[in-house]
Amino acid sequence: MTDTSARPAGGPPVATGRTPGGASRRPALRSLGLGPGKMARLKRLLYGHGPGGGTMLVLPIDQGLEHGPVDFFANPDSLDPRYQYELARDGQFSAIALHIGLAEKYFHEYAGDVPLILKLNGKTGIPSDAQAFSALTGTVEDAVRLGADAVGYTVYVGSPAQDRDFEQFRQVRRDADRLGMPVIVWAYPRGEADSKKGGREGLYAIDYAARVALELGADVVKVNYPVASEKDAESPAPYNSLHLDAEAAFRKVVESAGRALVLVSGGEKVSDAELLAKVRASMHAGATGIIFGRNMWQRPREEALRLTRELHAIFREYAQPP
Amino acid sequence: MTDTSARPAGGPPVATGRTPGGASRRPALRSLGLGPGKMARLKRLLYGHGPGGGTMLVLPIDQGLEHGPVDFFANPDSLDPRYQYELARDGQFSAIALHIGLAEKYFHEYAGDVPLILKLNGKTGIPSDAQAFSALTGTVEDAVRLGADAVGYTVYVGSPAQDRDFEQFRQVRRDADRLGMPVIVWAYPRGEADSKKGGREGLYAIDYAARVALELGADVVKVNYPVASEKDAESPAPYNSLHLDAEAAFRKVVESAGRALVLVSGGEKVSDAELLAKVRASMHAGATGIIFGRNMWQRPREEALRLTRELHAIFREYAQPP
Amino acid sequence: MTDTSARPAGGPPVATGRTPGGASRRPALRSLGLGPGKMARLKRLLYGHGPGGGTMLVLPIDQGLEHGPVDFFANPDSLDPRYQYELARDGQFSAIALHIGLAEKYFHEYAGDVPLILKLNGKTGIPSDAQAFSALTGTVEDAVRLGADAVGYTVYVGSPAQDRDFEQFRQVRRDADRLGMPVIVWAYPRGEADSKKGGREGLYAIDYAARVALELGADVVKVNYPVASEKDAESPAPYNSLHLDAEAAFRKVVESAGRALVLVSGGEKVSDAELLAKVRASMHAGATGIIFGRNMWQRPREEALRLTRELHAIFREYAQPP
Amino acid sequence: MTDTSARPAGGPPVATGRTPGGASRRPALRSLGLGPGKMARLKRLLYGHGPGGGTMLVLPIDQGLEHGPVDFFANPDSLDPRYQYELARDGQFSAIALHIGLAEKYFHEYAGDVPLILKLNGKTGIPSDAQAFSALTGTVEDAVRLGADAVGYTVYVGSPAQDRDFEQFRQVRRDADRLGMPVIVWAYPRGEADSKKGGREGLYAIDYAARVALELGADVVKVNYPVASEKDAESPAPYNSLHLDAEAAFRKVVESAGRALVLVSGGEKVSDAELLAKVRASMHAGATGIIFGRNMWQRPREEALRLTRELHAIFREYAQPP
Amino acid sequence: MTDTSARPAGGPPVATGRTPGGASRRPALRSLGLGPGKMARLKRLLYGHGPGGGTMLVLPIDQGLEHGPVDFFANPDSLDPRYQYELARDGQFSAIALHIGLAEKYFHEYAGDVPLILKLNGKTGIPSDAQAFSALTGTVEDAVRLGADAVGYTVYVGSPAQDRDFEQFRQVRRDADRLGMPVIVWAYPRGEADSKKGGREGLYAIDYAARVALELGADVVKVNYPVASEKDAESPAPYNSLHLDAEAAFRKVVESAGRALVLVSGGEKVSDAELLAKVRASMHAGATGIIFGRNMWQRPREEALRLTRELHAIFREYAQPP
Repeated sequence: MTDTSARPAGGPPVATGRTPGGASRRPALRSLGLGPGKMARLKRLLYGHGPGGGTMLVLPIDQGLEHGPVDFFANPDSLDPRYQYELARDGQFSAIALHIGLAEKYFHEYAGDVPLILKLNGKTGIPSDAQAFSALTGTVEDAVRLGADAVGYTVYVGSPAQDRDFEQFRQVRRDADRLGMPVIVWAYPRGEADSKKGGREGLYAIDYAARVALELGADVVKVNYPVASEKDAESPAPYNSLHLDAEAAFRKVVESAGRALVLVSGGEKVSDAELLAKVRASMHAGATGIIFGRNMWQRPREEALRLTRELHAIFREYAQPP
Repeated sequence: MTDTSARPAGGPPVATGRTPGGASRRPALRSLGLGPGKMARLKRLLYGHGPGGGTMLVLPIDQGLEHGPVDFFANPDSLDPRYQYELARDGQFSAIALHIGLAEKYFHEYAGDVPLILKLNGKTGIPSDAQAFSALTGTVEDAVRLGADAVGYTVYVGSPAQDRDFEQFRQVRRDADRLGMPVIVWAYPRGEADSKKGGREGLYAIDYAARVALELGADVVKVNYPVASEKDAESPAPYNSLHLDAEAAFRKVVESAGRALVLVSGGEKVSDAELLAKVRASMHAGATGIIFGRNMWQRPREEALRLTRELHAIFREYAQPP
Repeated sequence: MTDTSARPAGGPPVATGRTPGGASRRPALRSLGLGPGKMARLKRLLYGHGPGGGTMLVLPIDQGLEHGPVDFFANPDSLDPRYQYELARDGQFSAIALHIGLAEKYFHEYAGDVPLILKLNGKTGIPSDAQAFSALTGTVEDAVRLGADAVGYTVYVGSPAQDRDFEQFRQVRRDADRLGMPVIVWAYPRGEADSKKGGREGLYAIDYAARVALELGADVVKVNYPVASEKDAESPAPYNSLHLDAEAAFRKVVESAGRALVLVSGGEKVSDAELLAKVRASMHAGATGIIFGRNMWQRPREEALRLTRELHAIFREYAQPP
Repeated sequence: MTDTSARPAGGPPVATGRTPGGASRRPALRSLGLGPGKMARLKRLLYGHGPGGGTMLVLPIDQGLEHGPVDFFANPDSLDPRYQYELARDGQFSAIALHIGLAEKYFHEYAGDVPLILKLNGKTGIPSDAQAFSALTGTVEDAVRLGADAVGYTVYVGSPAQDRDFEQFRQVRRDADRLGMPVIVWAYPRGEADSKKGGREGLYAIDYAARVALELGADVVKVNYPVASEKDAESPAPYNSLHLDAEAAFRKVVESAGRALVLVSGGEKVSDAELLAKVRASMHAGATGIIFGRNMWQRPREEALRLTRELHAIFREYAQPP
Repeated sequence: MTDTSARPAGGPPVATGRTPGGASRRPALRSLGLGPGKMARLKRLLYGHGPGGGTMLVLPIDQGLEHGPVDFFANPDSLDPRYQYELARDGQFSAIALHIGLAEKYFHEYAGDVPLILKLNGKTGIPSDAQAFSALTGTVEDAVRLGADAVGYTVYVGSPAQDRDFEQFRQVRRDADRLGMPVIVWAYPRGEADSKKGGREGLYAIDYAARVALELGADVVKVNYPVASEKDAESPAPYNSLHLDAEAAFRKVVESAGRALVLVSGGEKVSDAELLAKVRASMHAGATGIIFGRNMWQRPREEALRLTRELHAIFREYAQPP
């Protein structure tokens, strides 16, 4: 089995609307069964700010909680949250994603300039990840009160603590339904079992995580780009013998996410060439956008702004009507 | 009384940013003590859509409830709510204002194209107005769920039913505070007492209404333009002997509204010249914008669009940074 | 003004899908912004039971509460609620509409055979109608518990008690939104003011009532067929000089109802010819169906069943896809 | 119209099970759609205590609240509530019906000996009855706490205060549904309108009241036995010309009550012969039992006990399986 | 012990209504003590859709959550949830069963075409099953809002986490009772203890699981077909020496489930002959229907549709009135 997709994925370029030849189309907003509140807010992120055309370029700044200030050493200016707010505003990001504290103390200065995604749960990286679970730091009602346009929630797929996670997420999802707030799920494979099944960066784990987010009710799912490695051999069949190339693997993930829009995670800082290639392949495979933090604010500001201009240009090629 | 304002309002023209000579400045958004949610949403109305620059051009379509379908005879196309939605979108209004039914049944098609102000209370015009009171048709939570950027509420200032009105408004205001939703008060003098004190269109009543809205917690107040008439003589002193010209009278109202931004009501359809003069005078006197319904959708569509272009041009003269 | 409609209403018959020449089309279900629960339940009434094809034939039996047992004398068998249940089942009605007591005591025997519309408010006809107000006898949650597919609510448009009515309806509407339950509004002009403005059967009052139902959030509105009379001269302009024929008047009402589907009330028992003509004209003018009680169960059972067969035949001509 | 019933009501006696010839059968318990809680409690009243066989003999003692101690002068012993409790116990009544105070202070001594019906609303007879409304004195939860087997609620059918009454009853009915508690409605015509339509003892008013109780959700309805009088001529047609004999009139009321079981009210004290004739006619016409207060405890105790033995004998003739 | 049933299960075929000779009859709906809401909804599944006649053919699609996308490789089209929705619709299934995400994003397109069973709890297959517990992903109120006709809940019978499971189920059951929503329990033996007592596929475990579902309040219970194996010897006596044939073993389970209707689980894909034999034996032994996922959507669509036609034919033989 070389291709699980019914969509055209190779061969000579074919013109499909405005998207580049051979690109997978993203689900149309109007097909998602969204109520008017989710529709209005998602349209703001996808069409009203950032690169537009149904794409999304998000700047996350929750690493101070997740990893600690260690992440800010590469670019000391980035320690001040205003740095990321201003980068998001000046780089015309679709939104900035952060926790309640950075929202309450700083967002009032940037409200209207850059949309807010309130990250609702988090944890420090200090204790062991074996029972990974990310507790609530805010609520959907906080997000409404702050004028956010979406909420973010981390699900640790595969963690032995998945029962508490599902329960907690269910309540977030219910409030988000009630208040018309889009839900972006950070779908992260985690827990000891995962590491025995190809690892958290393998296709098996990421593909599963994307599907879990869809079934639990995510409107948007943020996943890592799967990385082929020797550990894949330990994945359950048939993942252990798929041997998909990077884009085909990612396209598989996008398809598993179904009508949940897909954002690609940046992960650790890489070279420009690698990053742009990854973005282009992701968009080609049906991603809606990217959510890059360290790859943005660990660079010098001017370099980051230059990079966002290049990203805008790529995204424009994948514009799609609602 | 020559000038009720502490601001320079006469003498030789002084350059005050981009506003025309002698114009009153509107309160700066940052001075209003708004939380981030109200700030984000108001900025959307004042800067992100419509003429921008801190101005507001609102299209109301609640007359079907307040007056009945009789208002749609002048332009039969206007009976279909899509007409007003499309006029608001194509004429680049800052927002459309309407009741829950018109929001739930139609807004999903226009979400993202034109911001929504959910009108929260209303009544029919059939029974007597002596005890005027406008009951809730929706809630702030409905507004959040629908993705609205503000709520509208009618206070009948002077009605014997003011106790129920204040109580009902207090709950709306509390929910709006909790959820970061701006509140626009339709401040209408009403009730038998008013008619004995210069009438509902006199300066006494409108000036009082504007101040009531401010004190009750309005973020924005919608008032009628006061009309001088012989009935002014029956107003309480010193209103019965003020003899202000139209713009000075309106400036007085704007000052009474303090840090509540002021929108001028359109009322019945008038000639273009009258309407534009009224708008210019209002903006000069410190209004933030206008909320014109019948003057918009009782005209043929092309005429209305041409008029909105003229209004945009006027509003641009009064642009002001946040 | 001879025609307030943008739709073709006269001239030579034109083929518009499956509906007869010149007929107004009803709003398509998929355009109404309905969530999945309302959609699933409305489809059951419009397509899964009764004449289908997007039409609705409802049998109401709330007259015992509204008028008293006096209405059952014409056909003594009709005093036993099983009579109406069995008529609705055997005549293949789309639904039966009744109050909580008749639902709790009888519906368990007919569940699955005929859908239930739970009427949520009512009053007796004994006290004066001057301040007409219909109090809750059940809730949306009762309707869910009983397995109903819609709820019914009477709004007395124009009653001086409209403030309590709007408030009470708002809570019903909110629960219905929350639980995915379609809301059918019995929109009845009532109160002393109405009688001075052309009466409760005049076009002015019925047209206004239909629009009020739309703006308050009805999914379906039940109205009386307007009756031209000398009292029309007392209606507000321009209603006092419209002189529309019966079908044009009703088409006007349908248009005022916008995206609320329209059901026509039967009222007192009339001759077959009159009734069928009224039904045909209503469907031609864009009605979704009828809600006939006394005209059904005051007849002998066989006669009523024969009549429903004729109604099914008419409704089939107006079938329309979802 | 001489007989509104489809059931055999005259002619030669026909053997229908254990009930006397020509008697109307009461609805079978198993047909009423009752949940198990209502079923268990009603069976206790109908089969486990009192005369049994599906009949009910209830002793009410709420006259101290409704009329004042004036009612106890005829038999001074009756002033002490223990008198009625012991009469109910020793006379093997199906239940005693009273307000919260008489339950909390006395029932603990008789719990297990005689079932309790907690009367939930009441009023004094001191103010005018024009806007008659009976406020809550206890709740369904009180009834559960006290171990009652049913609750009683007075609806004043036709009172201008019917809106508050319906609303209040709805909440009682909801709690009773939730907690499996049978609801007995005291259905009393009342209010100025009634007195103009044949009076509160006329067939029109009582027939209407029985139907209202059914539609609002009563499990059992307590009505007065209609009294023919000259005032009937003022009833709405066709009541003004029915001229039914006493039993036929009562049978009409029983049919209007549908699947709500019917109890006959005693009213003022009458002679034994009259009383027994009324009971026999009521049972023959389909009543489930009687609720006699003053006719019981205004007599000397021994006389009352003798009378109850006669009533038991009559009731045994009308025994019916569940 | 050769026959645990009191019903005739052997000997020459006897005609029992429409069911094949010797077949066990299913409990009649009217005997189940269901309130009207559960009755209306269950009748929809058992008589209004699918093969009807009181049988149930359910298509589950929760494997993406429970097992991951790995299950979709056999038929790549099946990765898109629309595939299963369309198979359920075109194959005339009684219902489709899935989680909140697949309901919210897709059901709006199929509402009215195929009934929905909302699965309320789930887990991934990644961590160990030793403490198996399935957390809530949705609620009964979600199911009502979405227009579902039943809810599904997995109980892991035998898991050490059964205390949390019972507590969680109790709340689901209470809400389902309150809202009239039928509850289908996926009764799965699980946990380390089970594996020591004959395994999760043995009769001991499945028989116990069926009874647990009945006692906890399931309306319908989904069980696996017990599989005889050498591990049975480790079951508690007398299960370790029963040696029932497959159908007799399953009949035993059906009887343990009492008045909970029984659905048979499909499990992994098997051959057509095996599958049809298993279905026939299940229906003969008193099952109400089947819930087959992988055996349906892992086949090519046309093959699956052909198979459903064969299943419909079998089910028709076992039709039974309500």
